[in-house]
Amino acid sequence: MPYRAPVEDFAFLFDHVVGLDAVRQTERFEDASEDVTRAILEEAGKMTNDVLAPLQRAGDQTPAKLENGVVRTSPGFADGFKAVAEGGWIGMSADPEYGGMGLPMTLTTAVNEMMSGACLSLQLAPLMSQGQIEALEHHASDAIKELYLPKLISGEWTGTMNLTEPQAGSDVGALASKAEDNGDGTYAISGQKVYITWGDNDFGGNVCHLVLARLPSAPAGTKGISLFLVPKYLPNEDGSLGNANTLNVVSLEHKLGIHGSPTCVMQYDKATGWLVGAEQGGMAAMFTMMNNARLGVGGQGIGIAEAAYQHALAYALDRKQGKTSRPDGTGTIVDHADVRRMLMTMKAETFAARAIALCCAKAIDMTNATGQAEWKARAAFLTPIAKAFGTDTGMAVAEMGVQVHGGMGFIEETGAAQYSRDVRVTAIYEGTNGIQAMDLVARKMMDGGEAANRLLDEIEADAEAARETFPNMADALWQASETLREATDWLTEQSNMDTRFAGAVPYLRAFARVLGAHLHLKAALADKGGAREKLARFYILRLLPEHVGLLAHAQAGEADLFALSADELAA
Amino acid sequence: MPYRAPVEDFAFLFDHVVGLDAVRQTERFEDASEDVTRAILEEAGKMTNDVLAPLQRAGDQTPAKLENGVVRTSPGFADGFKAVAEGGWIGMSADPEYGGMGLPMTLTTAVNEMMSGACLSLQLAPLMSQGQIEALEHHASDAIKELYLPKLISGEWTGTMNLTEPQAGSDVGALASKAEDNGDGTYAISGQKVYITWGDNDFGGNVCHLVLARLPSAPAGTKGISLFLVPKYLPNEDGSLGNANTLNVVSLEHKLGIHGSPTCVMQYDKATGWLVGAEQGGMAAMFTMMNNARLGVGGQGIGIAEAAYQHALAYALDRKQGKTSRPDGTGTIVDHADVRRMLMTMKAETFAARAIALCCAKAIDMTNATGQAEWKARAAFLTPIAKAFGTDTGMAVAEMGVQVHGGMGFIEETGAAQYSRDVRVTAIYEGTNGIQAMDLVARKMMDGGEAANRLLDEIEADAEAARETFPNMADALWQASETLREATDWLTEQSNMDTRFAGAVPYLRAFARVLGAHLHLKAALADKGGAREKLARFYILRLLPEHVGLLAHAQAGEADLFALSADELAA
Repeated sequence: MPYRAPVEDFAFLFDHVVGLDAVRQTERFEDASEDVTRAILEEAGKMTNDVLAPLQRAGDQTPAKLENGVVRTSPGFADGFKAVAEGGWIGMSADPEYGGMGLPMTLTTAVNEMMSGACLSLQLAPLMSQGQIEALEHHASDAIKELYLPKLISGEWTGTMNLTEPQAGSDVGALASKAEDNGDGTYAISGQKVYITWGDNDFGGNVCHLVLARLPSAPAGTKGISLFLVPKYLPNEDGSLGNANTLNVVSLEHKLGIHGSPTCVMQYDKATGWLVGAEQGGMAAMFTMMNNARLGVGGQGIGIAEAAYQHALAYALDRKQGKTSRPDGTGTIVDHADVRRMLMTMKAETFAARAIALCCAKAIDMTNATGQAEWKARAAFLTPIAKAFGTDTGMAVAEMGVQVHGGMGFIEETGAAQYSRDVRVTAIYEGTNGIQAMDLVARKMMDGGEAANRLLDEIEADAEAARETFPNMADALWQASETLREATDWLTEQSNMDTRFAGAVPYLRAFARVLGAHLHLKAALADKGGAREKLARFYILRLLPEHVGLLAHAQAGEADLFALSADELAA
Repeated sequence: MPYRAPVEDFAFLFDHVVGLDAVRQTERFEDASEDVTRAILEEAGKMTNDVLAPLQRAGDQTPAKLENGVVRTSPGFADGFKAVAEGGWIGMSADPEYGGMGLPMTLTTAVNEMMSGACLSLQLAPLMSQGQIEALEHHASDAIKELYLPKLISGEWTGTMNLTEPQAGSDVGALASKAEDNGDGTYAISGQKVYITWGDNDFGGNVCHLVLARLPSAPAGTKGISLFLVPKYLPNEDGSLGNANTLNVVSLEHKLGIHGSPTCVMQYDKATGWLVGAEQGGMAAMFTMMNNARLGVGGQGIGIAEAAYQHALAYALDRKQGKTSRPDGTGTIVDHADVRRMLMTMKAETFAARAIALCCAKAIDMTNATGQAEWKARAAFLTPIAKAFGTDTGMAVAEMGVQVHGGMGFIEETGAAQYSRDVRVTAIYEGTNGIQAMDLVARKMMDGGEAANRLLDEIEADAEAARETFPNMADALWQASETLREATDWLTEQSNMDTRFAGAVPYLRAFARVLGAHLHLKAALADKGGAREKLARFYILRLLPEHVGLLAHAQAGEADLFALSADELAA
């Protein structure tokens, strides 16, 4: 599919909405000047447009397959991965000591989104490596770092995450894989893992698995989990590939979408592994990987939204059907008000989701650069919103993309349906969007709503300041923020967790609506009279009002959810 | 997939919500007693559960295929169709003079929904025949009726609708197929038609195509269209199959879903056809078929919603994952508040959509039985809402069904994804949901909002009467109805059609919200303290508030939709 990386949008967001300047002014990221970020966006855009986008349909039509225990990847994927690796895009934010570029996550988030939009199935491979790199940087021994990080960062080797087991999905603490101490600094890992993204490949290097398992002495639940690095080939001391480890790919899943991404069932039979982090410190290490991955998955949703929008717009600008009274019409279906409503919604939602994800990434950068608790709390608060809203947006926009195509949208050759199939999983993996929302109203509100209220303070201050320029938009935003603040206060007062959980998803969606409106307003202020002001107007006056219904839902309590018995549910 | 037809729900809706008694009291439908309708529901339910449901997965996994120009249907489909035919389910509402049962459309709508839930791909075959039967009853000559109707009603032969051409989809008036008078009472039909559902089959009988085409003298646009009956085999006088007609299936589409339903590209090369209705009266005849089919397609969405809900509930009641604090918990994920939120939403939405569809069907029955203009206007007003809301509900519920399954939802073997793939087309065919909404705010409001306001009067009267029993629910409904009335008045005052069209989809959705709340309230009144009251409470207090955001959107005008140029949309 043709795909054009939204380079201008990122550059605008960096400079006028997200405020990347604050990141650039830190010592850590002082090299990420406007010129450098611009050059990187353009270089990445070229790669995604020219190298990755042409692979998107091939991954769908010629899925990865398992042959004699080895994964054969889709046509062109090995070369595509090589291009990603050689461009340095895997280790953009990784430690320069091990070959990374040490760039801000804000920039990595932008590039990851572009890669997702161009070819989601393939982008999952570098994304998994990035998560592993970050986990090893934070938790692995120096020996492991020195051996593995340069090869993961260069793309010579790849990384995976092995959490899920058939009985342990959202409840990762229920996992049963075992680790036994071999007494020589290694461990023997045994067990079955499912849903292992890119669990194997034929790119030629090692496949390094980070595996959660339980030591014999470990307590039940998440507290008893340790993390192990278990490579497909045992590396020799010089880093060359040695003997094959005792692990294998049992089967690949037959999925709704992302056919180019091999989703493996993995079997470990006393496979040799090395401990990463402390014994029974697996969850802490895992969370490093997961927070990174959650923002990354949010970006996948946004990437697909961008691609689906471009695809639908191209169709709408070409397809002639029916007459309209538009004096300045193009003569195509883009002249129809309802087609416009869909396209404007797609564009405005994508912009909002992208801006939110970048704000989250900026908070991560500021945390890393300054160590300030407020930035850390901001990053933690925005992560579930960025993940859930990014992926909800991906689904909704891809769905609208199908609808814009009419009957053609249902025909696979058109390609519109692939976006909706591919993006579907993003609302599920790395913690379902329901789990994200529960995280938001529980863990992320253990501060009594402080992080939330600090955000709302900023939003209202900006709304106040914008009243003179854009009175309607500013007032709508201010009012919505106040309504959201009341709901936030109400939620934080609920000590019954089910009461919070009952409203979690609508609350998260309402928060995203208000954040999106805030960031659209900032964009409008930077582009008075321009296209971004018009888009903001659409978002704030048409989509923001949804917060009313969502917040009523969020505060309805849990009693009615549990009013029906299991029998009554089934009646 | 296991499927259990919701017989009790239909019986309850007939008696306590929709008011089927009014239909039974007409002379035309006096035989449709409570006992008879109950027996029919149960008999149909048995057939859908035992015969059709087991075919649902086979249709997906072994799609219909084209072999040497003939469609080979999915395994078991021929026997499934035979069971539908032999049960008399095709001609339930057809004229008894030709072998039909003459039953109310309300009952047919219920049975069609059950068949859709059990096996959507197969149900499309009888649905197409039903549309053809109705068109022939109203518009065909006696000779055609006598030859074709008994065989279509018995299922010996099947019927199709041929409207769309590559350049003429939503804009049917752009079609180019030609008809030439042969001078012997027949016409020669030439042209290509696309998206022809069940355009061929291997069930053994004739396949009768109703084809829209243009006579040489015809004016451009919809006014110049005539309707022809073009059978696959030219029937002999005794009704036996004669020579093959000069038409053929060029190819089958490769679709996102309903793989068991062959979607054909048809080629007509001077094929012999017979005029149905007047020359250039094709659109009137077509509308007969389409209105029927629109309600039927709404029912398809509801059927899939029911099936997806049952499927997800069964999974939720079985899957153990995580702990909750529910004292009366089942120990499965159904104890989680957010899973409950999804399941309750699925159940409440399905009930609302079903009730709306049955109200529409009742209005058709009352029109047919009494000829009263008010019932006719009611049916016309409710048809686009029943279609769009029924199919939107099908999509949303199937999507939530995938989400309830977590990672398993993305794996095709689970079956959850099939519902979302299959149902996707229902929001597109028989007029996209955008077209339905445009129909609602334009044609269906040419009465200055009279039909809408009459409905709102009834709703508010019922809300008033319920104030004592259910003060919160009654007040919420009354308030919502008033807000909707204001929006209705505003829309009917707009002479610029684009202003109406810009708000069409959100307006339709808001209307469905209010109608759904009304019908839930009626159900609650008939089941005080019971499960239906609890479900109504969920719907009215959690979902109804969405109308606020939707109606703000509906009244935002068209200017901002067209504010961006084509270049700005693409920037």
